[in-house]
Order: sequence, then C-alpha cells, then structure tokens
Amino acid sequence: MTYTLAELAARVGGEVEGDGAVRLERVRPLEDAGPGDVAFYSNRKYRHAFEVTKASAVIVGRDEKASPGRNLLRAGDAYLAFAKVSTLFHPPLQAMPEIAPEAAVHPTAKVHPSAQVMALACVGPGVEVGARTILHPGVVLEAGSRVGDDCVLYPNTVVREGCLVGNRCILQPGCVVGSDGFGFAFDMAGEEGSGPRHYKVPQSGIAVVEDDVELGANTCVDRATLGRTVVGRGAKVDNLVQIAHNVQVGPLCLLAGQTGIAGSTRLGMGVVCGGQVGIIGHLDIGDGAKFAAQSGVLGDVPPGEVYAGYPAEPVAEWRRNSVHARRLHELVKRVRQLERDLEKLKEGK
Amino acid sequence: MTYTLAELAARVGGEVEGDGAVRLERVRPLEDAGPGDVAFYSNRKYRHAFEVTKASAVIVGRDEKASPGRNLLRAGDAYLAFAKVSTLFHPPLQAMPEIAPEAAVHPTAKVHPSAQVMALACVGPGVEVGARTILHPGVVLEAGSRVGDDCVLYPNTVVREGCLVGNRCILQPGCVVGSDGFGFAFDMAGEEGSGPRHYKVPQSGIAVVEDDVELGANTCVDRATLGRTVVGRGAKVDNLVQIAHNVQVGPLCLLAGQTGIAGSTRLGMGVVCGGQVGIIGHLDIGDGAKFAAQSGVLGDVPPGEVYAGYPAEPVAEWRRNSVHARRLHELVKRVRQLERDLEKLKEGK
Amino acid sequence: MTYTLAELAARVGGEVEGDGAVRLERVRPLEDAGPGDVAFYSNRKYRHAFEVTKASAVIVGRDEKASPGRNLLRAGDAYLAFAKVSTLFHPPLQAMPEIAPEAAVHPTAKVHPSAQVMALACVGPGVEVGARTILHPGVVLEAGSRVGDDCVLYPNTVVREGCLVGNRCILQPGCVVGSDGFGFAFDMAGEEGSGPRHYKVPQSGIAVVEDDVELGANTCVDRATLGRTVVGRGAKVDNLVQIAHNVQVGPLCLLAGQTGIAGSTRLGMGVVCGGQVGIIGHLDIGDGAKFAAQSGVLGDVPPGEVYAGYPAEPVAEWRRNSVHARRLHELVKRVRQLERDLEKLKEGK
Repeated sequence: MTYTLAELAARVGGEVEGDGAVRLERVRPLEDAGPGDVAFYSNRKYRHAFEVTKASAVIVGRDEKASPGRNLLRAGDAYLAFAKVSTLFHPPLQAMPEIAPEAAVHPTAKVHPSAQVMALACVGPGVEVGARTILHPGVVLEAGSRVGDDCVLYPNTVVREGCLVGNRCILQPGCVVGSDGFGFAFDMAGEEGSGPRHYKVPQSGIAVVEDDVELGANTCVDRATLGRTVVGRGAKVDNLVQIAHNVQVGPLCLLAGQTGIAGSTRLGMGVVCGGQVGIIGHLDIGDGAKFAAQSGVLGDVPPGEVYAGYPAEPVAEWRRNSVHARRLHELVKRVRQLERDLEKLKEGK
Repeated sequence: MTYTLAELAARVGGEVEGDGAVRLERVRPLEDAGPGDVAFYSNRKYRHAFEVTKASAVIVGRDEKASPGRNLLRAGDAYLAFAKVSTLFHPPLQAMPEIAPEAAVHPTAKVHPSAQVMALACVGPGVEVGARTILHPGVVLEAGSRVGDDCVLYPNTVVREGCLVGNRCILQPGCVVGSDGFGFAFDMAGEEGSGPRHYKVPQSGIAVVEDDVELGANTCVDRATLGRTVVGRGAKVDNLVQIAHNVQVGPLCLLAGQTGIAGSTRLGMGVVCGGQVGIIGHLDIGDGAKFAAQSGVLGDVPPGEVYAGYPAEPVAEWRRNSVHARRLHELVKRVRQLERDLEKLKEGK
Repeated sequence: MTYTLAELAARVGGEVEGDGAVRLERVRPLEDAGPGDVAFYSNRKYRHAFEVTKASAVIVGRDEKASPGRNLLRAGDAYLAFAKVSTLFHPPLQAMPEIAPEAAVHPTAKVHPSAQVMALACVGPGVEVGARTILHPGVVLEAGSRVGDDCVLYPNTVVREGCLVGNRCILQPGCVVGSDGFGFAFDMAGEEGSGPRHYKVPQSGIAVVEDDVELGANTCVDRATLGRTVVGRGAKVDNLVQIAHNVQVGPLCLLAGQTGIAGSTRLGMGVVCGGQVGIIGHLDIGDGAKFAAQSGVLGDVPPGEVYAGYPAEPVAEWRRNSVHARRLHELVKRVRQLERDLEKLKEGK
C-alpha cells in the first residue's frame, strides 16, 4: 500500500503543506527516513533530526515551525495523526480461521468459526472464543472462561477459570488474568494444633477485562476474593503491572510498567500512573488523577490531582519540598551558623 | 452444599447471634449479598455496606457493634472464620487422575497414578510428581525436578532442572522456580583478548520450595550459585516477586507483590514485606521483621522491628522525619526569618 | 571430571599455595564444603566460614590473609577465577540435535540440524534457528524471528514476529522479546464520535538482542514503535526487568532485577543499574554510569557518574543529604530552640 501525502492528510484530518502528490510507502523515524518515507516530529529533543531528515514528508503539529520547502502533514494533534497514518501502513493482522491440529481444544469449548487457534494453544472445557479472535501458541484458556470478538492473545497468556475478556482486547505475551489474589488469614493454632500457618482465603471471584483493554507482557490481574476484579473499558496497562484482587481500574486508565495496585483499591476513570507507581489497598482514587513515576500512594486522592513522591503528595508541594531536600546540607550549615552567631550575641551581652 | 448458620459457627469455632437455623448457600460481598448469602465485615471503611447489607448472615468479630435483628457469626478472628467458611463453600478442586494425551511426559518420569497432567503440560526425564498433584496446561517440569503431593501448578509455571517443590504447594500461572541467578565476573581481557566481557558464573545450585508454600503469578525464584535458594515452609509469595540466588526466605514469611530480595539475603521466620519492597544482598533480616510498602532495605534488621522508607529505618523515626520532610519549605522559611531577625539584632547593637 | 589444585590454577591463571596435588571433585560453598571440594572466599561477611571451612582448597584473592596450612588458589581476581573453575566442573549443556515429535515446527522454518527443539516448543513460519541452539519446552518463536547459534531459550520464552536474537544468548524462562511498546494517542472524539479512547500507536518496529546477551526470567523487551529496541552485545539483564520501546541498552550493561527503562532512553556502554531502578523516557545515560538500587532517574547522566535517590543525584550529595534527612526532627528542634533564644534576646533588650 502506498499513499500520497494528500491522501494521508484526508484520511487523518490534517492539512498538507508542500507537495501533496508526493508518494509515501513507509513510516520511518526521522533519523532513518529517506525518499518515500513519512516521519513524525513533536518532541523538541529531536529538533535537529527533524531539521536534517531526508523523509519525503513529516507529520507535525499545526503551529510547528519548519524550514520552507518541507512537505508537511499538519494536524491539531500530530501524535494522533501519526498513529492513524502508521495504522494505514501497518493494519492489524487478521485472523485466519483455523484450529491448528497441534492445538488442544476441549470438545465442549465454543470457538467461533472465524477465530484462529494456533498450534499448542489450549482451550479448556466450556470456554467461549469470539469472532475473529486470535489465540497464539501457548495461550491457555481455562474452564469456563470467555474471550470476546476481535481479540489478540499473544503467546503464553493465561486466562484462568471463569474469567472474562471483552471485545477488541489485546493481551501481550505471558500476561495472566485470574490468578489467585494474595489473601491469607493468620491461624495461630493451625490444623489440629500443628502450629501457626497462613490459612488460604479462597479466591472464588473472577477477573473481568472489559472491551478495548490492552494488558502488557507478564502483567498480572488477580481474580477477586469474592465478586470481581475489573479492568475497565479502554484501559491500557503496560508490562509487569500487578493488579490485585478486587481492584477496580476505571475506564481509560493508563498504567505504566511495573506499577502495582493493592487489593480493593478503586481507580476512577482516566487515572494515569507513571512507571513503578505503588498504590496501597482499599483506596479511592478520583477520576483523572495522575501519579509521577515511582510515587507511593498511601491515601485517597481527589479527582484531577497530580501527585508525586512517597508518601505521594500534590506535585507542587512535592517539588517545593524536593528542591529543599536536595539542599538539606546547606540548610544544616545555615542553622549551625545561626547557633554560633546567637552564641556570640549572648556572650557579647 | 448449603449450611445453616449454626452449622457454620460450629465448623469454624464461632458463636451465633440471631437465627442459627437460617440456611446459607453462598459467600458474597456485603454490597452484593442477598437472601441465602453469608458475608464478612471487619474493615471500618465498609461500615455503611455492613449496615445496609441484605445478607442473611454476616461474619464479624466478637466485639463488633451491630444493629439488633442481624444474624451474625461472631468469632475471635473474624477473618480466619470467614476464610474457613469460604473454604466450605469453595473446596479446592481435586485432581482427576489422568495424563492427557496431549501432554508430553518423558518415559523416565514418575508421575503418581493419582496425579493429573493436563494437555500440553511437559514432564521431563527423571521428574517425580506426587500424589493428587495437578499440572495445568503449559506447565514445564525440567529434568530431575521433583514436585510433592497435593500441589497445584497453574498454567505455564516452570520448574527448572533439579529443583524441588514440596507438598501442598500452589504455583500461580507463569511463576518460575530455578532460573539462573544473576552472577557475572567482569573479565577485562575476555576470551583470547577479545575485549571485556561479563563472564557467566555457573548457577549450579538449585531452588527449593518447601511444603505449604504459595508462589504468585510470574514470580521468580532463582537457583543458587552453589547450594540452595530456599523458600521456607508455609511462606506465601505474591505476584511478580524476585527472589535471587541463595536467598533464604524463612518459614511463614509473607512477601507482597513486586518485592525483590537480592542475592544471599536471609529472611528469618514470619518476615512481612509490603508491596514493592527491595532488600539488598547479603543481609540478615530477623524473625518477624516487617517492612512498609516500597521500603528500601540497605542493612541488617533485628527481629520484630517494623521498618519503612529509603534507606529503611524504624517506622517511628521514619514517620517523625517524614512529617518534617513534608513541611521542609516551612522550615526553610523559618531559618530565613531567623537569619533576618539576627541580622537586625546585630545591626541594632 | 576431577582436577588437581595445580591443574585448576593453571587453567584459570592463578597460583597455588599449599598442596597443588590435592584432587578436587566439586565446587561447594564454604560452609558445606568437605574433602574433595574447592570453595571460594572473598566477602568479609563470610570470614568465619572461611576460617573453619573443611574444603580441600579455597579460591582467594592474591593478598587475602589466610591461616597457614590451607590449600589456596590465589588469583588477581578471585571471583573470576572461581567462575572459571566452576565452569570446568559445570560445563554448559550441549544441544542434542533433535526436533521432538511433540514440537510444532512450521514447514517454512529453518532449524539448523545441530539445534535441539524440545517437546511443545513452537517454531513459526520463516523462523531461523542457528547451530547448536536449544529451545526448551513451551518456547514460542513467532513468524520471521531469528535466533542465532549457541543460544539457550529456557521454557516459555517468547520471541515475537520479526525480532532478532544473536549468538550465544541465554533467555531465562518466561522472558519476552518483542511485545508491543506502550504507545497510545489520546483521541477525544473517538471512532465516529463514540467518545474518548486511547488510540493504539502501531508498534511496527522490532526488538534486537545482540550477541552474548542474557535476559532474566519474565523480563520484557518491547519492540520499537518504529525502528529497533536494542539490547547491546554482552549486556546482562536480570529477572522481571522492563525495557520499553526504542530503548537502546549499550554493550556490557548490567541491569539488576525489577529495573525499568522507559521509552527511547539510551544507556551507554557498561551502565549498571541496581535492583528496582527506574529511568524515565528519552534520556541519555553516559557510558559506565551506575545507579544505586531503587534510584529514580529523571534526567540525563554524564558518563562514569554514580547516582542514587529520587530524583537521582550524584551519590556523594545523596549521602550527605540522606544523613541529614534522617536527623530532620533534630534540625527542627534546633530551629525551635533558636527561635526561643532569639525571642528571649529580643525581649531582654
């Protein structure tokens, strides 16, 4: 597939500056791009690469300054325009309807005839797999789980018994839906006086992944103790994230890599966590709250707030304190000087 | 299975308040429960849900206040009573003795006739699998490993060569026992002068998971460089935890999600780590020590202590300092004021 | 295989002290070692174990003090000597050329005849597997990926479509190469006005793992949005590490467990990250920079620097501030005392 710049602009709702007839064959990064390539520029860090790129066209924001003579696709949201252009050049793979002979599909499972089950995928008893969904090798769907339409489950993902995955979901390799939550009651006496033990609390609930969710590689979503753990519609979760039992992740949340949400915490709509954020259990995080990377959240957070630090606090306060914390040794010197001066003053009396 | 409230109380060692004859069919959360349901209440955050629940009975602590007319199961440890009641309604699945035709079991492996090996599980040469143990699809037991009786290994767990898993262990999906420890010796010269390299230190020891241990989804327990990495009897480990080579996790430890224990560190009995705790290598952590979430532990810790922060310190000190740290900008202002006042005083002389 | 102490010394470039003819059969830890065992000592914490060990010989540094009568193998770099000695006793397993009948190898894949594909491994269309490479059970190589010579891919590792793994690489169980990067453009309008959504940015690049790299268990290396994510020659990566899209990890880097590197960040040669380090996106980290465990890196770092803390700063400054931070409550008291004294002085006037 190739497109003219004008065609691309029309498709993504942008405007052409320069030659709309230039033909584009590929999307490439600024620094590697050459003739026939369309590139993308927005982050100032890469300004030089933008200025010297050999790309035939570049997608930029509406007000971005550019040398004359460049072919540009200008859009109000350049990143979104780039994403759409790139999707034109890289359409998602379509399912090739088939159950591979090396797959293990239980006779009671209902796999939609348009779905694709690759070799060494395993579909358990009573499982339902929707239309056009692709199960890669090593995927395991356990008894009674359901996966909707138009999903892609990459290799070695696991959906445990009774759990639900909606439509248009993408599960990256190795991610786990429905592992047992971490719940134990301390039992001092133990079984027949055998001594103390951690008594396992049955995790008899399920995990629900709603429509349009993406879960990252090796990310874990625990099933609920009772009821449901939910990853809400359109939420996107990065790699190695831990979502504990009974957590409610609201619609459109973004959770970056290695974030952990402890049990029963509720994230509102559109909450954003940077990498390695930790949120303790039983909290209520308001719609649109945002957390800087590595924040440690120990209390409820109102809607729309931006927090940072440990314990996490509003980012303006965190910054103010953080600046002083990095000059703490100077403050100590000033206090010492004050003590000396005051001593002299007293003696001078 | 259904039970009367009186039967449940008798089974778990609690007392009935209200109607002991009420028949219970399910365990459900307070907010979803209705007739026929038994629920559980302990965390004050959910007081309102307790007050308005439609559950036929609620499990509560001995001294919990409740409106008259409620059917209650009172117990000294309400959470433990709940766990036991829930187990009555959700007994663990039993192995259905079978080796699935799609499993790959090496002829030299010894699988107990009462064990269940599901489709696409792989049992290597010389492996031993105990009585009533269940291997889910995608489980890989490598050469010479041993798994005891009454274990459940969920999909895609891996036990590498020679490693040992005890009795009554539960391995959540994707967890790994016996990956190589992270050990390299810097070799400036390299092979035949090929330049610097990290020379791999053979990780020829094993990992041992003792009886009654649970390992979380995608958790990793590295094998020892020499000797053994040990996860002690009855320890419970959450998802995405890293246990490095030669670590000794004592009996009954609780390690919450995304915690990491570096090489050769020894945790005593009953150590508790909140989420995302990090403990550096070669430390000695005393019995019953506890760490707040995200603590960074850089030195030995005596038994029974509660630590927090980075570097981790006794929690009382951490709290005291943490309060001041969040008001650091005020302190800076006070020092500035003092400097000004003192200056005036000097000039006034 | 057994060796005399003199043979071992000759093989690893060390010197014998004591009886070079003593015959050694095994490598064992100091505390477990007995006759026929060679042990290793370097960390002062284990001095006592060194003094009382029953090992027939011990590998130590050139200047290490030792009681007379000990058989020692002295080397300039004792740890490297130990690593080499241990390799003599534990040579890496060799591939046993075979494609197991329970493996699923696509007819268009090119598997070198000297490679070993174990049961339930899956090799997709157009995949190339090099000489003497071993694919353990549950390994999935997706369409068009390539794995070089002399690699070991442990169970359940995944290499997604088009990604490249060099020669002599080791992939620990469950690690993932080529998962989609975490890239979404916020789309306020949504598809045909269906409301806001996160529009997926195609991750059409690849991930490249160069020669002599080791990736830890359940570690994730995302494919690039465009172009390549690269883990450079000889880099060693521990368990549960997140390497985001378009990251460049330089040659010989060492990344300890649970470290996360956000998108497009470039690590120079030989960068070292302690455990649970986080580095935000689009940064430039100089050659040989080092980060203490749990550092949070928010800005570029010059070559050779050692950083710690959050936000990470040069370790000397971090230490200086950290000491004061732990005595912050004392500083507050001193300031209060100053305020009182000054008040008195004013009143005294």
